[in-house]
Amino acid sequence: MASGISRRALLAGGAAALPLAGAGDRASATTEHAATAHSPAVEPFDGVHQAGIATSPQAHAVFLGLDLKPDSGRDAITRLMQLLTDDARRLTQGRPALADTEPELATDPARLTVTFGFGPGLFRAAKVDSPVAPLPSFSVDRLDDRWSGGDLLVQICADDPVTVAHALRMVVKDARSFTRVRWTQRGFRRRAGAGSTGETQRNLMGQLDGTVNPTDLDRAVWIGQGPEGMRGGTTMVLRRIRMNLETWDAADRPAREFTIGRRLDTGAPLTGRAERDEPDFARLNTLGFPVIPEYAHIRRARVEDPGQRILRRPYNYDDGLTAGGTSDSGLLFASYQADVERQFVPVQRRIADGDLLNEWITPIGSAVFAVPPGCAADGWIGDRLLG
Amino acid sequence: MASGISRRALLAGGAAALPLAGAGDRASATTEHAATAHSPAVEPFDGVHQAGIATSPQAHAVFLGLDLKPDSGRDAITRLMQLLTDDARRLTQGRPALADTEPELATDPARLTVTFGFGPGLFRAAKVDSPVAPLPSFSVDRLDDRWSGGDLLVQICADDPVTVAHALRMVVKDARSFTRVRWTQRGFRRRAGAGSTGETQRNLMGQLDGTVNPTDLDRAVWIGQGPEGMRGGTTMVLRRIRMNLETWDAADRPAREFTIGRRLDTGAPLTGRAERDEPDFARLNTLGFPVIPEYAHIRRARVEDPGQRILRRPYNYDDGLTAGGTSDSGLLFASYQADVERQFVPVQRRIADGDLLNEWITPIGSAVFAVPPGCAADGWIGDRLLG
Repeated sequence: MASGISRRALLAGGAAALPLAGAGDRASATTEHAATAHSPAVEPFDGVHQAGIATSPQAHAVFLGLDLKPDSGRDAITRLMQLLTDDARRLTQGRPALADTEPELATDPARLTVTFGFGPGLFRAAKVDSPVAPLPSFSVDRLDDRWSGGDLLVQICADDPVTVAHALRMVVKDARSFTRVRWTQRGFRRRAGAGSTGETQRNLMGQLDGTVNPTDLDRAVWIGQGPEGMRGGTTMVLRRIRMNLETWDAADRPAREFTIGRRLDTGAPLTGRAERDEPDFARLNTLGFPVIPEYAHIRRARVEDPGQRILRRPYNYDDGLTAGGTSDSGLLFASYQADVERQFVPVQRRIADGDLLNEWITPIGSAVFAVPPGCAADGWIGDRLLG
Repeated sequence: MASGISRRALLAGGAAALPLAGAGDRASATTEHAATAHSPAVEPFDGVHQAGIATSPQAHAVFLGLDLKPDSGRDAITRLMQLLTDDARRLTQGRPALADTEPELATDPARLTVTFGFGPGLFRAAKVDSPVAPLPSFSVDRLDDRWSGGDLLVQICADDPVTVAHALRMVVKDARSFTRVRWTQRGFRRRAGAGSTGETQRNLMGQLDGTVNPTDLDRAVWIGQGPEGMRGGTTMVLRRIRMNLETWDAADRPAREFTIGRRLDTGAPLTGRAERDEPDFARLNTLGFPVIPEYAHIRRARVEDPGQRILRRPYNYDDGLTAGGTSDSGLLFASYQADVERQFVPVQRRIADGDLLNEWITPIGSAVFAVPPGCAADGWIGDRLLG
């Protein structure tokens, strides 16, 4: 330091001097929380299911992929999950984490949810049968290790980016003795309360994304059978999908709508008038061709049985620009389904085998996780699997 | 493509088939804008001053630093600024840019502002005397070229991250023929409407940041004399300040408050009770030492004459994590002042010469820009300087 004051001196001096100096002034101090007029938006933490899945999507997300340190076994994972569950339980309810170094940043949870997923590697380390296997490879995949895999997923979502940054820091600090950071992926959606299209968001290609989601989550998302430890849980697939917005810009609106099978403005299927109208895949135009093309995205992604649909909860990413002005942006495609093999894989295979959209999108990251059920007020996430 | 359909065929086929197929369906299409119930939040674009400076800070910002391509002269810069002004004027008012490829993303401006600043290099290229010079170097600086300098700054702020992403893309597309991207810096603050502390935000160190801002902007911020082309304009300093949050965590609260000279909870000076209380720099504790230490940040940053204060409009950044869990985060310190030499430089020098906070923060990027005044409805930013 230019002033010649060492940190050591400061720490000693500061700590010693302040109680004398400030005792009178401190009495009237109020916390920011107490002084805040608006009521904080809080999502429940404890429950049958983990929050952050059926939760109406918040504006900001960070997905954190962690790898266990070598030789971590079931005991270490248990301690880790006890710690992280405690952090999540406190922070989501607007209370500082146990050793929170910036407690003022915790008082406004902004609908914070913290959701945990276990990768195949975590089950291996715990010597417990894994309910999930790595995904098969798809012909369209150009996967980068940097965005793929991971033993433990922590998904942090909130309507305020400061809340997300703070929660991430608290989680990473407590995970540090047990894990290494494998990747972080940051995403965003329209802010809370914007727009009239319910929970469907517009992605950076301009299309409404996520129209067809299941409504009966008990069938489509939550696991209702099999080993007791996963009942009430689900599985998650996280795919990082790069968009080539430069070439997408070269396609005009009819070509884009033809590719998707929906109007860009309303999100209505090409055979309908409103976003939620059922597409009529059989309808032909006057030339005898299907109005919704054979390789249109909504036809390839279609799942007829609503109980087999995947729950999509996507976020946009936009991480930088090259010197030439090309963006590194796309979609953090997060889906939740009771059964990866039966629900996600067939859809992804149909898309990989022939979807016009593949011309402009490339999967560059992929990971799969078992998402344990929620826990009781004195429990921890994963307790019925590992405890 | 796996399906064997070429993009060329798609573009031809799609464009040809759709007018036939969809004519009846398209009639009832409504734009998202028309269907949206909430009234979009719009900041004015045309005016005496550029928006984005006195504007109540939005939740999200991206700062884009561009370099002119070699041999760009006044004509090229004029065309560039005419184009970008047109983009900014439309997008901020909720209208698509002229060649907007995703017009639906433009309908919700979310208080979007687009602010332009000219670096010394732009004036050199235009053969016009520069109202700003590069900053002197400071002893604390550890500047990286990657975050420093730039011929043209575009500051894009909005309450919605999708709005920011879209505006950035439109600007970069139109700037591409004239410039190369030098850097982008993304920042965030508490979302709009959060908290009770007015416009003061908490940074990632947990401290309230930006309490002492000037109130008389006509004296402190807007240029009222000198060459006509800058009257109503200002100057901007953008510093990227890395925070060492790991070692900051090792300091306890008394040490942190001693360093800043303010309480962490209320933001009140150590001699006061509320954030806006005037600090009493003369007050001594019972040991005879100043209650607010000699090298406390608020003493070093203090400017007695309110007319000489700089307007701070800082954003947080949080860009990644190392494998070991160390964050790359800090502050995008943006300040606006009528005169860089008289207002910014002395403060920065006092801080560099001895501020306890320097133990935990490091300036790693630095740039200075002349911010032209606003323009008339038929004008463009910089017209009175370069036109």
